[in-house]
Amino acid sequence: MNENQVEPSLSDMPDDEFRAALAQVSNWLARYRENIRALPVLAQTSPGKTEQALPPCPPAKGEPVEAWLKDVDDIIVPAMTHWNHPGFMAYFAVTGSAPGILGEMISTAFNVNGMLWKTSPALTELERVVLRWYASAMGLPTSWFGMITDTASTSTLVALTAAREAAGLNVREDGLSAKPALVLYCSEEAHSSVDKAALVLGMGMRGIRRIPSDDHFRMRVDLLEEEIGRDLAAQRRPFAVVATVGTTSATGVDPVPQIADVCRRHGLWLHVDAAYAGSAAVAPEFRWALAGCERADSLVTNPHKWLFTPIDCSALFTARPDAFRNAFSLIPEYLRTDASGAVDMMDYSFQLGRRFRAVKLWFVFRYFGTDGLAERIRAHVGLGKEFASSVDLHPSLERLAPAHFSVVCFRVHPPGLDDEAELERINTEVLRKVNASGDVFLSHTKLKGRYCLRLAVGHLQTRAADVRRALELVCSSAGVAPPAA
Amino acid sequence: MNENQVEPSLSDMPDDEFRAALAQVSNWLARYRENIRALPVLAQTSPGKTEQALPPCPPAKGEPVEAWLKDVDDIIVPAMTHWNHPGFMAYFAVTGSAPGILGEMISTAFNVNGMLWKTSPALTELERVVLRWYASAMGLPTSWFGMITDTASTSTLVALTAAREAAGLNVREDGLSAKPALVLYCSEEAHSSVDKAALVLGMGMRGIRRIPSDDHFRMRVDLLEEEIGRDLAAQRRPFAVVATVGTTSATGVDPVPQIADVCRRHGLWLHVDAAYAGSAAVAPEFRWALAGCERADSLVTNPHKWLFTPIDCSALFTARPDAFRNAFSLIPEYLRTDASGAVDMMDYSFQLGRRFRAVKLWFVFRYFGTDGLAERIRAHVGLGKEFASSVDLHPSLERLAPAHFSVVCFRVHPPGLDDEAELERINTEVLRKVNASGDVFLSHTKLKGRYCLRLAVGHLQTRAADVRRALELVCSSAGVAPPAA
Repeated sequence: MNENQVEPSLSDMPDDEFRAALAQVSNWLARYRENIRALPVLAQTSPGKTEQALPPCPPAKGEPVEAWLKDVDDIIVPAMTHWNHPGFMAYFAVTGSAPGILGEMISTAFNVNGMLWKTSPALTELERVVLRWYASAMGLPTSWFGMITDTASTSTLVALTAAREAAGLNVREDGLSAKPALVLYCSEEAHSSVDKAALVLGMGMRGIRRIPSDDHFRMRVDLLEEEIGRDLAAQRRPFAVVATVGTTSATGVDPVPQIADVCRRHGLWLHVDAAYAGSAAVAPEFRWALAGCERADSLVTNPHKWLFTPIDCSALFTARPDAFRNAFSLIPEYLRTDASGAVDMMDYSFQLGRRFRAVKLWFVFRYFGTDGLAERIRAHVGLGKEFASSVDLHPSLERLAPAHFSVVCFRVHPPGLDDEAELERINTEVLRKVNASGDVFLSHTKLKGRYCLRLAVGHLQTRAADVRRALELVCSSAGVAPPAA
Repeated sequence: MNENQVEPSLSDMPDDEFRAALAQVSNWLARYRENIRALPVLAQTSPGKTEQALPPCPPAKGEPVEAWLKDVDDIIVPAMTHWNHPGFMAYFAVTGSAPGILGEMISTAFNVNGMLWKTSPALTELERVVLRWYASAMGLPTSWFGMITDTASTSTLVALTAAREAAGLNVREDGLSAKPALVLYCSEEAHSSVDKAALVLGMGMRGIRRIPSDDHFRMRVDLLEEEIGRDLAAQRRPFAVVATVGTTSATGVDPVPQIADVCRRHGLWLHVDAAYAGSAAVAPEFRWALAGCERADSLVTNPHKWLFTPIDCSALFTARPDAFRNAFSLIPEYLRTDASGAVDMMDYSFQLGRRFRAVKLWFVFRYFGTDGLAERIRAHVGLGKEFASSVDLHPSLERLAPAHFSVVCFRVHPPGLDDEAELERINTEVLRKVNASGDVFLSHTKLKGRYCLRLAVGHLQTRAADVRRALELVCSSAGVAPPAA
């Protein structure tokens, strides 16, 4: 063997070049953040345009960092919808905050895979500590077992896999064929990821009951009971209920204490989807929303939604880690270790590989502190409530749901016009015009069949003036009176 | 509403502070990389130590970046297994390369969610372009539809969900209950993520057939045929075969052309797990390993394994995107858009949220070029082959599998000692001693029941001297003669 260093040309980027590139990219990051208000928040491009601007084949020879960054500026930035823009008020508005970005840099440099404790003790243990911090900040049990996944879709799928196994049918060994039909319950307002998890798990659409909600978009517990009774009478096997704290459309809060009673009575797993609203509970005045959640078997909430952590970072908590192990633990020889007393995260999920996501969440807590996080949540809710009040005061605007948190569902509704199809047409057009402005980006939904616009506050740089600008744009696009000063 | 800017105390980190923190963290990254050889590659800590070093509760007040970085150095670094260390030769060795790290910085700053084309056109289209580059670099069909997921576990689960739906039993609507038992085939050497996917999908352990492999750790196609025949005779429903190109233990290559014939004959979905070895095909002399893969229905290969891309980045290709849509597409009102002709990535997976992972892979291609990538793959294979030769020349070492790529399976086997239990005891002890050195980190596996050590080359800074050091450590730990000079 050759004792000499591998040819530099076959190694990674040389150290001095890396330092220079870090400075260039850092400068790019800072500039992007400082100048983001000058960019249209919603991408103004058309399908295929970016693809056509890029070469069909990869380069054979390497190119310097300047060349890549130029393409980022010329090709990528103009085709981005800028989620990290203060005017982003669609879906759930998020923030990739400065400490979160810095944390992601550290974890990328580590480049570790936390499949086993041994392959990254610090990843495994920091994740547990930071999730305990998070639970404590929300007033949830710190005794819960926590794990970080990429998204709530994964968290819910993993939780419901454990729930399916906990139903006592030995699905892990036998499979679902020849078992009674399993049934999952959630409200009609539940997120599509719940249906998708059930599809993957083999319940089929027929195994999903979307229970109607009341006027406040809360699951009707009486109807839940009825459905369970019907399924039991038909020899089907109810196994889990998904309650939502902060539904995707209207941020409704299901009556978790009553649902927990139903689950206890029937021996069903209770999974809570608090992906958006869970973080609100970091401010004590919003802890009411998590009432009863301490009785859940599992709960998901996403720091990448409303805790200023860069995507992706979803927190899955459970009171029953053994159920997850029962569903998932499967240790091939090449992953056996001798570390006794250690938790191997691979035993709790279908996923083996795990990025070190805890660092960014840790840095977010370290920089803002829980007081600072609570103040920011509070400020966002305040902006939302001001917007809701303005809607309520305007004769041609109508609010369609309570504004518990930082999301407002509303529509343009000129007095006397009550044709739903025409209202949908008007609001669709208003949405198109508002979003074409480039200043703000709103989204839409339907509530009880009625088309409505949604404004969500969640970016740390969003100001009162931005929210007011959104309202002015809605009014001018609709041709109705401007909002009162 | 207050027109003024939100109180600075309620915003994100101020711009000047962010620039200073970027410089500090960049310096941390560069130093970590420059000094990594001074760190023991395998963490020298014990379970619970990191947890105890961290406060049980989050801070109420924020702290400056210096405080977090100090804790990274004092608490986290000593409890890390350093995957980005040139002495990391366990499992599959990986590299979080400089261009990959820089790319991750950009995508973190964007903080976009690519669930819909509209929510990030550039993410959707760059991902397609870069995956086409990757397919082209490996000699695979550029007409394939590609998507990036976090890990091969997810890629395989998503692919097999599509496969299950493509079996024509309408599982999506009806669920699995009352359907014939579905059966999945893979070799006994297949990765545990295949079993886990089948468990999640509701096949149960009974629905998984691990087909024996031959002396080169290749699936026995004759036995595959026999098993399929038995299952059909028993009214079970075969639906998919997973072939592996580069098995986890021995990097064996299943006979994909023959398996594809079997799949065609029986109408089964062919999924190829090339998570590790797929990238080898960027060097044309290793394209033989992917022979027949152009006939696969889906194929996964991980740039975060052997293409120098920071974790997580798994590429899932398919010739049948419609099957994925059939399994997964489900569009709630709040995600409806008017962008005709656009691809919405959420329609192809159970996951809604998607990080902008394509940037780092794009930068890797831009910096190294395909020639540069091929040379590096070639160099790693060269280092592996030199190690294999040294093992073959040593009277007390034994190789246990062909070294097709950069992984060598071997053991200490003193002449005349043939008791397997004793050999396992010796090699377990050798592994413990080698890994305690801090210079290199090897892993182990069992092949045909025989315990063996594994050395994997995959880090860009690994030199011939590092691989030689591993061999010397094995010999000295075993008390056998040092390797020939």
